[in-house]
Amino acid sequence: MAEANLTAVRDIASRSREADYPHSPVVRFGPGEPMHLDAGVELTPFQIAYQTYGTLNAARSNAVLICHALTGDQHVANIHPVTGKPGWWETMVGPGRPIDTERYFVICPNVLGACMGTTGPSSINPATGRPWGLDFPVVTVRDMVRAQAMLLDHLGIESLFAIAGGSLGGMQVLQWAASYPQRVFAALPIATSTRHSAQNIAFHEVGRQAVMADPEWRGGRYLLEGTNPRRGLAVARMGAHITYLSDAALHRKFGRRFQDRSNPTFSFDADFEVESYLRHQGISFVERFDANCYLYLTRAMDYFDLTADYDGMLARAFKDSPTRFCVVSFTSDWLFPTSESRSVVHALNAAGARVSFAEIVTDKGHDAFLLDEPELFAIVRGFLDSAGKARGLSGGR
Amino acid sequence: MAEANLTAVRDIASRSREADYPHSPVVRFGPGEPMHLDAGVELTPFQIAYQTYGTLNAARSNAVLICHALTGDQHVANIHPVTGKPGWWETMVGPGRPIDTERYFVICPNVLGACMGTTGPSSINPATGRPWGLDFPVVTVRDMVRAQAMLLDHLGIESLFAIAGGSLGGMQVLQWAASYPQRVFAALPIATSTRHSAQNIAFHEVGRQAVMADPEWRGGRYLLEGTNPRRGLAVARMGAHITYLSDAALHRKFGRRFQDRSNPTFSFDADFEVESYLRHQGISFVERFDANCYLYLTRAMDYFDLTADYDGMLARAFKDSPTRFCVVSFTSDWLFPTSESRSVVHALNAAGARVSFAEIVTDKGHDAFLLDEPELFAIVRGFLDSAGKARGLSGGR
Repeated sequence: MAEANLTAVRDIASRSREADYPHSPVVRFGPGEPMHLDAGVELTPFQIAYQTYGTLNAARSNAVLICHALTGDQHVANIHPVTGKPGWWETMVGPGRPIDTERYFVICPNVLGACMGTTGPSSINPATGRPWGLDFPVVTVRDMVRAQAMLLDHLGIESLFAIAGGSLGGMQVLQWAASYPQRVFAALPIATSTRHSAQNIAFHEVGRQAVMADPEWRGGRYLLEGTNPRRGLAVARMGAHITYLSDAALHRKFGRRFQDRSNPTFSFDADFEVESYLRHQGISFVERFDANCYLYLTRAMDYFDLTADYDGMLARAFKDSPTRFCVVSFTSDWLFPTSESRSVVHALNAAGARVSFAEIVTDKGHDAFLLDEPELFAIVRGFLDSAGKARGLSGGR
Repeated sequence: MAEANLTAVRDIASRSREADYPHSPVVRFGPGEPMHLDAGVELTPFQIAYQTYGTLNAARSNAVLICHALTGDQHVANIHPVTGKPGWWETMVGPGRPIDTERYFVICPNVLGACMGTTGPSSINPATGRPWGLDFPVVTVRDMVRAQAMLLDHLGIESLFAIAGGSLGGMQVLQWAASYPQRVFAALPIATSTRHSAQNIAFHEVGRQAVMADPEWRGGRYLLEGTNPRRGLAVARMGAHITYLSDAALHRKFGRRFQDRSNPTFSFDADFEVESYLRHQGISFVERFDANCYLYLTRAMDYFDLTADYDGMLARAFKDSPTRFCVVSFTSDWLFPTSESRSVVHALNAAGARVSFAEIVTDKGHDAFLLDEPELFAIVRGFLDSAGKARGLSGGR
């Protein structure tokens, strides 16, 4: 028990440090530069942590913004400072990769409400000197994008060559294209949707209830009280993780195989490989993620509804858009099914925007955007090459 | 807090009473009649609680066995003694209903491992005088069916006219047909499968982890310690409930509508109708169900693999079967998809059995078998009518 407590305290100390003093460059926005949030309140002061890769060219025309997903962060293509693991999109971003850091200047900010250095519920609230917890205002995808625009202003980047992201990252891409069409030359929304469905909301709500059901959550004050709702957050992660994979992928990877044995134990041990795998997913997640952040980011996704923001006419979101789009979906993604991407494509067509659409045949489910998916790499590379020519970017930088 | 404790104690008292002294007839099997479980142990003594409807004819040839699903029980067509609500299959079973209690003698036993009067983890272990808890042996679908066969022996019913059930109930139907082909004239497996898939196991494992993560679970000893893992079990139920409905049904019922308001609250309240609905499902479930039973019954489903039991050849399970089958699936059931039912049909064809197959087009998902689904009613009625003629049952009883 004492050891468990020590581990908890160490976790919390390390997470709190990362929330306020991250292993990333940070831009602080002081009292003179408040964020006006959709919730109707002002957030000030606040900070944004981000990573960059490659070099901004003299014309400042080769910047690519990467938007991360729910449980991602800004560590796209470097060793993660908490887990020690490679970046989450090293297959996509790097020298010679589809998003080629020898050609493009890649920026990835940690989103507003997250826990890796951008202000969120685990950051210190300067008004009280204590972690924000549930006093942190609920933020939206539009707020995240607004904060990113402020970061780009600060970095002197007027216009993005491209913006790319999957899942929640794709929602940010769509919101960017809607909010700042003149600042986005090319947009790559991947495995995403313009609105969270009832089923999506339902799965998120189960995850939130799992966190809140953990008595260690303490009404969101666990950082103050030295507890950690590990078990609740692990259950939330396990449930969510199933939705990231297809039935076929789970069957291919695990089927009904037993873990390290040939017969059932007739117990509640992790008899099946898929059980061990899920338990591992839950346990490893809580080492790097904050429970309140999980609540805030899932909530932001639930609230996302670009169609509603434009009076039920999605095409209005992209009216007269100068941006060129490449919309990507995966056949076995049942969390953000292809039909969602198709409705984005239809809206873009109706708005007269330039759009191409790729539905990639794979059994890997929603997570395909993070995995080794050669067709995805080829599409992203081809789309950026072509957009680069249109933008007048030279091959060598 | 005191009131909450009182409620918990009342719940537990009422559930414990129902587990040992149910509002149902009970058959007790004493030391001379042990159950040989698949886990390799003997269960003795034990009891089976059951309900019956209608009258057994003189030839004892009109008995229909109903097998209930994971969270069902024997109260098919009467007011539930704990919830006060109608029986779970009153649309299907009753006078003039498709399973017509004016023609058939309907029996529904509570399954082994459950909590409504048949011996399970919340029953008193006679060896200790305390609730079994996790000392109760893990049971399988085959064990459940073996216990039901003992009940029928006791009731003097050699052969069933028909057997019907959905989901876990359908697994029992298939197991009955495989284990006791000579005792089953007609079989109706509905929305079911011959084996739990990796995704099915994964969802169940999340539910079990949610229960076990609740500190009130106390390693399964909550009945002894006067606690109740309500929150964990509610989370498990919420997650499972999503899998019982289709994406389309959730969209049709709830969409993105807000609950009792027109704008988001920017909070973690149940803003969306689908959130309120799920929370209600969780809360009402814990009032009538036992957490350990949930572990045991999900485990029995996970272990079910009729193909593996017959050396990987499903057709062998039904070799020379005299039973006539009607296999039913629902197009939008993604928990037990039509492809699973089709593989049952193929195996039955390969075994030379008499089988008809109905895939019902509906957007109601897995739960369709419990809902008002006229096509299902028509199919069941027609199948039983035709089987009744073959069996020589007269129209009037």
